[in-house]
Amino acid sequence: MQVRIPRKNLSEALNHLERLIPARSSNTVLTNLKIETKERGLALSGTNLEIDLELVVPAEVQGTETLTTQAQLFSQVVRSLPGEMVELDLEGQELIVTSGGATFKLQTGGTESYPNFSFSDNHDLSLDAKEFMQSISAVRYAAATEEFRAVFRGVQVELNGKHSRVVATDGFRLAYHDFGSLNTEARKLVIPARNADELIKVFRDGEVKLAFLPGILSVASNQARMNIKLMEGELPDYERVIPKNSNVNMEINADELRQAVSRVAVVADKHASNKVELIVAGGKLQLVAESESGRAQDSLDIKQSGSEPAITVGFRAKQLLEALAPIDGVANIGLGQNTPAVFRSEKDSGYLAIVNPLRV
Amino acid sequence: MQVRIPRKNLSEALNHLERLIPARSSNTVLTNLKIETKERGLALSGTNLEIDLELVVPAEVQGTETLTTQAQLFSQVVRSLPGEMVELDLEGQELIVTSGGATFKLQTGGTESYPNFSFSDNHDLSLDAKEFMQSISAVRYAAATEEFRAVFRGVQVELNGKHSRVVATDGFRLAYHDFGSLNTEARKLVIPARNADELIKVFRDGEVKLAFLPGILSVASNQARMNIKLMEGELPDYERVIPKNSNVNMEINADELRQAVSRVAVVADKHASNKVELIVAGGKLQLVAESESGRAQDSLDIKQSGSEPAITVGFRAKQLLEALAPIDGVANIGLGQNTPAVFRSEKDSGYLAIVNPLRV
Repeated sequence: MQVRIPRKNLSEALNHLERLIPARSSNTVLTNLKIETKERGLALSGTNLEIDLELVVPAEVQGTETLTTQAQLFSQVVRSLPGEMVELDLEGQELIVTSGGATFKLQTGGTESYPNFSFSDNHDLSLDAKEFMQSISAVRYAAATEEFRAVFRGVQVELNGKHSRVVATDGFRLAYHDFGSLNTEARKLVIPARNADELIKVFRDGEVKLAFLPGILSVASNQARMNIKLMEGELPDYERVIPKNSNVNMEINADELRQAVSRVAVVADKHASNKVELIVAGGKLQLVAESESGRAQDSLDIKQSGSEPAITVGFRAKQLLEALAPIDGVANIGLGQNTPAVFRSEKDSGYLAIVNPLRV
Repeated sequence: MQVRIPRKNLSEALNHLERLIPARSSNTVLTNLKIETKERGLALSGTNLEIDLELVVPAEVQGTETLTTQAQLFSQVVRSLPGEMVELDLEGQELIVTSGGATFKLQTGGTESYPNFSFSDNHDLSLDAKEFMQSISAVRYAAATEEFRAVFRGVQVELNGKHSRVVATDGFRLAYHDFGSLNTEARKLVIPARNADELIKVFRDGEVKLAFLPGILSVASNQARMNIKLMEGELPDYERVIPKNSNVNMEINADELRQAVSRVAVVADKHASNKVELIVAGGKLQLVAESESGRAQDSLDIKQSGSEPAITVGFRAKQLLEALAPIDGVANIGLGQNTPAVFRSEKDSGYLAIVNPLRV
């Protein structure tokens, strides 16, 4: 084979694969990536056994070849190359990598013992990558990080004729993001949150096509194909924990609130969950935090409404910051004494988050 | 007291002190910093028992006060403040920090149990900070990092009427940098390398004054005073290991050589000290590295001279890169079969480094 390929494009594809492919494994074959010549260019693929990924990089290709080589080393070599273009060739068992005066000869392996990827060519649904990935990005923080019930460590994708939604919850707080209706039969699938992270990084824009295989979500764009293992089960009914009304509502600039929360949290008590108190009264929000070492206070102007004239509620600083993070511009926040706080975005009506207050 | 001080300047001073002052200590007093009102502004000081540091930040000051407060917390609070100016006040035992709507009240302590710093007001020598610190920066890498003989973990400062020099060696490679003559009696002092790092960071330009106290180097500028504990002893005679002549000499662009070394080192054998071979012949330098997983080769144009027509020598990639790092522009490199390689900088005649080749 003879391949001429721009270093930058090859390097970008390898970055995605290098994150996925294990640097060490008891099965050393899994530390390899597969390189395959195609009509459209060079196909590079790899797996962590949870996610299979294939990326096609446009290239001038002559001849037909399929080989495997150590993924991390190949990535490092490509990153270090001096020229804009990279030439690849196979000499016996060695992959020859040439660029601007430098030559590397790398050991290769066969593909017999390498996993066989079964990317789907039939797709059930096509949607806008940016919209779908932004929804996942907006709610992914709410998934559980610790062993709890497995399904809480995933993001649930809900598809049906009426609305499409991505939702995540760790059982204590929740976030969902609606992203418009799709013409599809009703489905719920739960993607492990760390796999969803890879999905977001690989598919950034354009159109993506989804295929629903047993236990697997298959995602494809022009340049990439990804198979993701799904979790079993689905989230319990979460709609019933979302408060219909709150005692006090406020409109506030999300960025100013984030800054104020971060600021007072500096002296918050680590042994008391880094509690930050929100005190709403008379069109003002006061933020207070304290610990043995000191006390902090800040105040912001808000637009206040609701059935009660004032309220004081405490939250974990981190949970406030995470619920606010996807909100750009004005946040609408509903507070109640013994009910979860509700966060909405004025600009992006698809987003909703709830956070439980700390008990006093 | 009442103090008005620009947040940016206060924050910069605290960054220096925060690096030094331990976040945790069995003697909790040492996690504090001392705040003292002075005519010129606010003096902030702290210690890690190896280095005592005092920084004066220009400020509007009313009243006289000396207090201590938790260094890390105070730094975090100042960094988080919203305004350009910070106001400090003392209310009972509480330090009140106000800026742009936010207020912090921090616990303070007395100064009775806090270490007493003895910064020198009499100085033996004054010199250009930039020149002195650049010399230290250029050679500091050559100091030993592991326990060996203590003195090898320091940088030696040599002062006398003829020349001033900073030199470091781990016993296997060596670097020195000369920085002009000073009118002073002959002295050698060894600064622990990690303390030299702090010296470089705090004194960047202007004039510095040195005072030589027993076992301590005292350094002062207009804004800062630092006492550094010195090491006992001095480096053994190193001049005799510097080769007078080399078999092959080359002139080469230091940056291109660094890039080529980094590149071929990607496939160098970790079990063979990441060896990179330099092959000089016919006005060309060829770089070769290999391991089980592959082989790399690169070549660069050089200006070659010397008594022998060709040579092949191997080095640890990291040691080559470190010896080259201080060289900007053209490097003059002398190679011998069984003698150390000598690195000089065309632009900066003060710099010299030697690196031992690997045995074949």
